[in-house]
Amino acid sequence: MPDLEYVFHPRSIAIVGVSRDPSSYATSSFLEPLIQFDYEGKTYPVNPEVSEIVGVKAYLGILDIPGPVDYVICCLRAELTPKLMRECVTKGVKVIQFFTSAFSETGREKGIRLEREIVEIARQGGIRVIGPNCMGIYCPSSRISFDASFPKESGSVGFLCQSGGNAIELVQLGDARGIRFSKVVSFGNACDLNEADFMEYFAHDPQTEVIVSYLEGTKEGGRFINALRETASAKPIIMLKGGEGEAGIEAVASHTGALAGNHAVWDSLSRQLGIMQVYDLEELVDLLLLFQHSKPPKGRRVGLVGTGGGRGVLATDSCEREGLAVPPLPEAVRRKLREIAPEETYPGTSVRNPVDSAGMDWNPDIFSQILKTIADYDGLDFILTYTRVTFGTEKVAKVLDALTETKKNLNKPVAMVVRHSEEPKTVSYAFEMQNRCHQAGIPTFPLFSRAARAINRFVRYYEERQS
Amino acid sequence: MPDLEYVFHPRSIAIVGVSRDPSSYATSSFLEPLIQFDYEGKTYPVNPEVSEIVGVKAYLGILDIPGPVDYVICCLRAELTPKLMRECVTKGVKVIQFFTSAFSETGREKGIRLEREIVEIARQGGIRVIGPNCMGIYCPSSRISFDASFPKESGSVGFLCQSGGNAIELVQLGDARGIRFSKVVSFGNACDLNEADFMEYFAHDPQTEVIVSYLEGTKEGGRFINALRETASAKPIIMLKGGEGEAGIEAVASHTGALAGNHAVWDSLSRQLGIMQVYDLEELVDLLLLFQHSKPPKGRRVGLVGTGGGRGVLATDSCEREGLAVPPLPEAVRRKLREIAPEETYPGTSVRNPVDSAGMDWNPDIFSQILKTIADYDGLDFILTYTRVTFGTEKVAKVLDALTETKKNLNKPVAMVVRHSEEPKTVSYAFEMQNRCHQAGIPTFPLFSRAARAINRFVRYYEERQS
Repeated sequence: MPDLEYVFHPRSIAIVGVSRDPSSYATSSFLEPLIQFDYEGKTYPVNPEVSEIVGVKAYLGILDIPGPVDYVICCLRAELTPKLMRECVTKGVKVIQFFTSAFSETGREKGIRLEREIVEIARQGGIRVIGPNCMGIYCPSSRISFDASFPKESGSVGFLCQSGGNAIELVQLGDARGIRFSKVVSFGNACDLNEADFMEYFAHDPQTEVIVSYLEGTKEGGRFINALRETASAKPIIMLKGGEGEAGIEAVASHTGALAGNHAVWDSLSRQLGIMQVYDLEELVDLLLLFQHSKPPKGRRVGLVGTGGGRGVLATDSCEREGLAVPPLPEAVRRKLREIAPEETYPGTSVRNPVDSAGMDWNPDIFSQILKTIADYDGLDFILTYTRVTFGTEKVAKVLDALTETKKNLNKPVAMVVRHSEEPKTVSYAFEMQNRCHQAGIPTFPLFSRAARAINRFVRYYEERQS
Repeated sequence: MPDLEYVFHPRSIAIVGVSRDPSSYATSSFLEPLIQFDYEGKTYPVNPEVSEIVGVKAYLGILDIPGPVDYVICCLRAELTPKLMRECVTKGVKVIQFFTSAFSETGREKGIRLEREIVEIARQGGIRVIGPNCMGIYCPSSRISFDASFPKESGSVGFLCQSGGNAIELVQLGDARGIRFSKVVSFGNACDLNEADFMEYFAHDPQTEVIVSYLEGTKEGGRFINALRETASAKPIIMLKGGEGEAGIEAVASHTGALAGNHAVWDSLSRQLGIMQVYDLEELVDLLLLFQHSKPPKGRRVGLVGTGGGRGVLATDSCEREGLAVPPLPEAVRRKLREIAPEETYPGTSVRNPVDSAGMDWNPDIFSQILKTIADYDGLDFILTYTRVTFGTEKVAKVLDALTETKKNLNKPVAMVVRHSEEPKTVSYAFEMQNRCHQAGIPTFPLFSRAARAINRFVRYYEERQS
């Protein structure tokens, strides 16, 4: 079992600094999620002024809690934290997470000193600290979360995130596209437990198959690089590194007090260790989706099948721009496609690559025959299909049936670009369509450029591991 | 008046090849929009088998229509088009648009010959042709459209589009973000009227202030370049050029039969003439939005104001990656910000650039004071604010009030990044929020990377015109 297992599976949690107000951060971000997730251990809200908070019995202080307390979430003001730390030592607490901010990230003496004091008490008292200035742990298997809306289902993605806000964004963006997490850690200023500890943990965690990370800086460079090296040899790592340029480095300093480091060094380190660098949360989710659903493709030759000639041109350009090939189909395959969709019956259909099925007006039988024909051609490694959703029709549903049914027997990865007008009603239809695709193991993307970029990175990951 | 005015303002339109079936392309894409838009001229559906289609009296043939016919939309099969052309000559038709495909874009002798025949009849008979293989004209001021869902309101954007599908996508993507068009032309194979004709028209059209174009190739290179040069000196032109690489050029050939040309030549031509090149429809809309709403900024120094420290880091990185500066604020400005939001009351607030207003929890008064303070500092040229929408609260509405109210008195452009989880309910809230911003002249973007890229292009456009 990895070392930090106890961090993710505490038997009891105390939340210190909850207020009467159910909309306060402490209650809404920490107490409510434990209730909603049906946390199996004991939950102890701590507030000296009330006896009950949202239906849960509250305690005056940590030392007034009758049973043992494994894990403490602290939402007090920074000035009050050293006193709490000492009580936690007395109580035998194992881990304390600080939502509390205004420590070293302020850049000022007072906050820096307070953070140092906490670390000293922790070292002497044998307590591990997560944060300060963070959201802590989301671990669906132990029913702990810092957002009540997060999925309760476990997945295979481990997420190590220096920013609480970005952690919430990524889990929700991922959720909307069917991605599930094993464990998420938002660790803020990383005054004690840091990126190296959690990377080592994820390396050995059997529930975690892919690791994603938003990192602003490293506290233990050497140890972290070793952890990255070891982990990257076994599991894919996708890294979003915050703080690139001059102002970005400044922004990082005032956010988590981290030293962002030289971006060129991060760049070359990533290349050397086979770590995939991405540049925003959307790109991160796009790439993750391929790791979640698709088997490693054998090469970078893409077959494009969709509706709309102009869309086909843009899809092709996006693929070529990312170094993906869109090879012409041999005459034998084109002849077969023409038999499936005769020109006389379906004018406007093109049997080149991209195959423009506009003319056949979403006929599900023909669509699945075309898809099979393209996928059977061994000159292609990846199938990218695309359409545009304007409203949910029975026809579209049937084509989706055909797609998901056909996908079961395909010997290569298939993905889909779902275009829509951004108008809320079409977004809803597109969302339904995407969900059906994700359930069938078909990753979806909103833009050709994003699909092509993710496919390129995905293919390159396996290319580099082979070479 | 520009030459082609009569193309956009016909007194009567005949739609040839409408079928009984109201869901057929001819009826849904051409007849229905004229009805829905309350087209002021006369509408004549033509079908030899029925006397009425969706409530409109139908005619056996073009020659059976009693009054004059200015404009014909042809949805017949390709083989039947020469006969129709001859009838149009007899009838004195001025313009004919062919939705019909299977001409030169098939790459086969039969289609090429048919297209040539049509052009010959047109030249001899004095008829101008739009297409074939296209959607034709959307001109809200004369109440003509090829999609009933398009906005009925006129705007200042002229759109010249070789692809019908991309034309529909762009108008709807634009509509969702408050962009309105003066005229849109989908002109497909461009066998007669081509990109040069329409570019010349847009150059002189007083309703058109910005020109966007999706182009796959040019039929009259020299004339088109002259038209581009003349137009670009007077109005901003944004160009999405389809067909870049080897496969893209092939895709273009089978879509509209166009010769995509050498991309490097397009690239250098664009740079030389000050034409903005973009690479997908979303990027096009992003940039358009700035031209629609924002005054030319004086430089590329961006002030960032928003909620979330990690978001601030990503926003900063995106700006710097696009060559935008995010300069630190001078002590005087920071002192003023600290007075507005004292640290003791709002821990977690950062008064650097980015200004992280997380701690003040969307207090509208404080937000507008901060915005004003930042905007008043003359070391910044552009204000980019950002937030994340999870649900529509009264608080968010009040902050929007503050934003739109404050914007009225700002002396520099302001834009907003609206983040959401992609889950349909939050998309709806974000959409409402965006609409309010667009109505107040504040462009919005879904991603930092897209905002930064658009702002960079927008700033660069004016930089290049000054130098």
